[in-house]
Amino acid sequence: MAAILPTIQFPSDLKSKTMEELEQLAGEIRRFIIDVVSVNGGHLGASLGVVELTIALHYVFDTPIDKLVWDVGHQAYVHKILTGRKEVFDSNRRKNGISGFPKISESEYDAFGVGHSSTSVSAALGMAIGDKLQGKNNQHIAVIGDASIASGMAFEALNHAGVTNARLIVVLNDNAIGIDPSVGALKSYLMQVKQGKNPKENNMIKSLNFDYSGPIDGHDLKMLINEFQRLKNKNKPQFLHVVTTKGKGLKKAEENQVLYHAPGKFDKITGDLLQNNQQEFTKYQDVFGLTLLELAQKNNKLFAITPAMPTGSSLKYMMDAFPDRAIDVGIAEQHAVTLAAGISLSGFTVFCTIYSTFLQRAYDQLIHDVALQNIPVIFCIDRAGLVGEDGATHQGIFDIAYLNAIPNLKILAPKDAVELRQTLYTLQDANSQPVAVRYPRGYSSEKNWKVPFETIDFSKIQKIKKGTEAAVFSTGTIIENVLEALNFDTGFFSVYHFLQIKPLNEKAIVDLIERYQTIITLEEGVINGGFGSMINQIVLKNKLKVTIINLGVPDEFIEHATVNEQFIYCGLDSLSMQNLFKKVSNVSI
Amino acid sequence: MAAILPTIQFPSDLKSKTMEELEQLAGEIRRFIIDVVSVNGGHLGASLGVVELTIALHYVFDTPIDKLVWDVGHQAYVHKILTGRKEVFDSNRRKNGISGFPKISESEYDAFGVGHSSTSVSAALGMAIGDKLQGKNNQHIAVIGDASIASGMAFEALNHAGVTNARLIVVLNDNAIGIDPSVGALKSYLMQVKQGKNPKENNMIKSLNFDYSGPIDGHDLKMLINEFQRLKNKNKPQFLHVVTTKGKGLKKAEENQVLYHAPGKFDKITGDLLQNNQQEFTKYQDVFGLTLLELAQKNNKLFAITPAMPTGSSLKYMMDAFPDRAIDVGIAEQHAVTLAAGISLSGFTVFCTIYSTFLQRAYDQLIHDVALQNIPVIFCIDRAGLVGEDGATHQGIFDIAYLNAIPNLKILAPKDAVELRQTLYTLQDANSQPVAVRYPRGYSSEKNWKVPFETIDFSKIQKIKKGTEAAVFSTGTIIENVLEALNFDTGFFSVYHFLQIKPLNEKAIVDLIERYQTIITLEEGVINGGFGSMINQIVLKNKLKVTIINLGVPDEFIEHATVNEQFIYCGLDSLSMQNLFKKVSNVSI
Repeated sequence: MAAILPTIQFPSDLKSKTMEELEQLAGEIRRFIIDVVSVNGGHLGASLGVVELTIALHYVFDTPIDKLVWDVGHQAYVHKILTGRKEVFDSNRRKNGISGFPKISESEYDAFGVGHSSTSVSAALGMAIGDKLQGKNNQHIAVIGDASIASGMAFEALNHAGVTNARLIVVLNDNAIGIDPSVGALKSYLMQVKQGKNPKENNMIKSLNFDYSGPIDGHDLKMLINEFQRLKNKNKPQFLHVVTTKGKGLKKAEENQVLYHAPGKFDKITGDLLQNNQQEFTKYQDVFGLTLLELAQKNNKLFAITPAMPTGSSLKYMMDAFPDRAIDVGIAEQHAVTLAAGISLSGFTVFCTIYSTFLQRAYDQLIHDVALQNIPVIFCIDRAGLVGEDGATHQGIFDIAYLNAIPNLKILAPKDAVELRQTLYTLQDANSQPVAVRYPRGYSSEKNWKVPFETIDFSKIQKIKKGTEAAVFSTGTIIENVLEALNFDTGFFSVYHFLQIKPLNEKAIVDLIERYQTIITLEEGVINGGFGSMINQIVLKNKLKVTIINLGVPDEFIEHATVNEQFIYCGLDSLSMQNLFKKVSNVSI
Repeated sequence: MAAILPTIQFPSDLKSKTMEELEQLAGEIRRFIIDVVSVNGGHLGASLGVVELTIALHYVFDTPIDKLVWDVGHQAYVHKILTGRKEVFDSNRRKNGISGFPKISESEYDAFGVGHSSTSVSAALGMAIGDKLQGKNNQHIAVIGDASIASGMAFEALNHAGVTNARLIVVLNDNAIGIDPSVGALKSYLMQVKQGKNPKENNMIKSLNFDYSGPIDGHDLKMLINEFQRLKNKNKPQFLHVVTTKGKGLKKAEENQVLYHAPGKFDKITGDLLQNNQQEFTKYQDVFGLTLLELAQKNNKLFAITPAMPTGSSLKYMMDAFPDRAIDVGIAEQHAVTLAAGISLSGFTVFCTIYSTFLQRAYDQLIHDVALQNIPVIFCIDRAGLVGEDGATHQGIFDIAYLNAIPNLKILAPKDAVELRQTLYTLQDANSQPVAVRYPRGYSSEKNWKVPFETIDFSKIQKIKKGTEAAVFSTGTIIENVLEALNFDTGFFSVYHFLQIKPLNEKAIVDLIERYQTIITLEEGVINGGFGSMINQIVLKNKLKVTIINLGVPDEFIEHATVNEQFIYCGLDSLSMQNLFKKVSNVSI
């Protein structure tokens, strides 16, 4: 049979195909995705699960006139391949390449940019309301997974949609897994529905006033097409429950769905993972997760929470060993934070691990439920700083700024794996106020981080390098780049590490600054409102005569690329900093 | 009959009472609340609705060992009166008096501090999980209204609770109204349940794996007590649906539940509202709401959204006139923001009005769904700055700081009602980027704000007062205090108003600063990361030789008091500023 995929550039090319050709196409797309992702990396499992679903949607609906919104977007590779981006798919997640997520600026077929979960129903409903008001007759489809739909924001949108007459179709892509397996009562309920139990009674979706249909097999292309054709002309919100298998078509990916969510490079035939050349190093996440496990073994008042990231955060180690004291609450950051406050009040030391970018979802809970009441929850802010290939939606660059505004909160940024470890150890007994500890995505360069525990003094400003004329005030792991940048320097620059960003010791800082002509502040986060801005405040308040340079992330969204390319873009890589340092010290560049 | 209320100091005093005495007590408590609130102001309707419910809870459960969490807390006056605070109830919401909301530091009976909605289930579940792990056998009760339970955060908590064996009782206080009438599919569903329709099928709560009972009459004390006694020893999550009437016992409050949510002073017998001596002035909210109505009359592409505050925000004017283009989505800030993005993409100019403190709930949506995609939604940030009697939970003091960190966003703070009006007018055609406009709670001092529309230049730095030596850089309505403070000055101080906080025109600011010896920045918001911090950045970057003083809200939570008392606390009242200005200009104080 002739290959079908080469004949497809845009969804319009699907319309003339036979059912057999479309089914053949599904196989070709799977092969194409496996071929590319096995070499390039990226999110594999989710897209393999929605091949038939995506073909059916673009076959039945008239995209981009009909609006198609993918929740989260991990599953949108098929969509990208079918909407003009097949030829550039191998640039996925690379600098200047296509984004790993749908993105309005990339294609008119990407009706809404995504990355974070549970936004699709709100966005599609908004378009549906707006289009209907303008007399348009197009459809609006939100495709949302069973993990995402359990998040509060999606519920808010469903609750609103149910009382509208919007031309909205919510497609529940139920594969029983997000990045880790889904949790919660809704998941249990969906499981019962799939097993044929409880099909009529207690239908949550019907109680929200949607027309519910399903569950149907999401790999049965004919059934999907028939169902979408039936739904296409409806004039009120519809809900279709589709059951799919994450990783469908690659045996290993079906068998180990967590590992193959984003497996890195693998053998495209066998599915075997290829060696990761950083395996001799430890991820910061494992430093966190393994240290917490050690602490929990000796401290039965230690409790930990993750919203849907047991594997990503490495909380899984403690969850496996102490399932009663380490829990996954699903994609529910708001709940996670206030739950942490409640558990803390009952007498536990609670570690709540959340990615920096997702803590944005719980900003109010952090202020109103934790900090205002001065409840000593410990926030372990994962993937703080630049995150690389996930790009603009996932950058962990706002946390220092948004946390600096919150009273009562202590903010810490360890410089390396050992300091992260000792910070966690010290914090388990520091129960006087809420604390945020930020650390990056990726690997530590220290092999021997598992040192004996020692209590550390957070507020001590650490002199890392001695110089006489200028000083770098650095916070967090980015100090590695500074030290590399200063390999030329013989005594002009001092380097100080601020483990504690907030509160700052004003007197000690004034004393320090008075010794230098120039201070360079440095952080892996936005400059506006960041660590540097707090140093600025001290300089001006105390009328210090010093030149100040604030380094950090500029006031713009930073697109996908490698972390190092993003460092370069922001002037935070060692070479850019070296050039700056040479200029400051009048060394010819 | 002898009065019962004088014999009650703590819940333990209830235990020996007969049912008749408890019923008599309910009447006395209503009378007591009406007597005090009619003179002092405060939240009336919600507490009148839960008199029997509160008595029943404290009669059956062993508070404070059993943990009782009130959602939002508007309804907690009865609880306060029954838990040792009857004698100080007349200090409610006053400086150094008791808070209008439950507060841990105020009483051991206040298990969790509240103010914002939908936190109670998370907090109570956290305590329940923690207590059970420690072998405790106590109960945990969350009392949540039908408006609050429809918010996403509450759903996240219910979804989690349903798969635990926590000793948790969720009491749904269903009065079909929040501050304004409840909306959404869940509300329709609850209405059906109350009307006896749909009692078995499609029970949303059962599908979340709770044991559901009700609906029962929330003013039937005996039934409530029986039901709580039945639930008290349950070992898994229970859900009790209680139907109450907001304002119960005061005829006018029952008839006009929105007005009597927090009616100000009123006649305690007739319920008639007393004259408000500020009635000749206009609330900033009405400047917003009435201006938007005018604009909507001429611009059919104008759309507006409020999450649950039609009356508070004054969006009700446009909602009444254009119900298709001005909508209340309920307590759903996250959804409201992303919905606004969707509607904007469909071609409307969308105004999304949210209180500053509640926009914290949608911080991620603002960053990820709006700003990252540069969608030109206009956020009208109501109750920005110090809010007075609602206190620490409701202060609108973080927005400048948390917004300053977000790329692509324009931030505006008009100096008065006319400028707010012209800003709204100008924004309806400014569709290039998202914008936040902040304005305070309360009254404008301008009577004639309804001037003809004019387009204004946001970025122009406005010289309000001319002086030679020092300059005040002010943003927002707080400039009123500055001008009053400078009534002594004959030419030392200039005053500049920055309508536009972000982006700042660096070159223009440098030019300005170079003319003065001292710059005083001023904002009604936290200093950390605020407007002043952005001026600081410009000063240091350009090595300007100038003395800088940053005025604003210090790094602490500001408790309830009048707005003016809060200004004094923060040094932002005109007298405190005058003293500072005199010191700066060497005038003897």
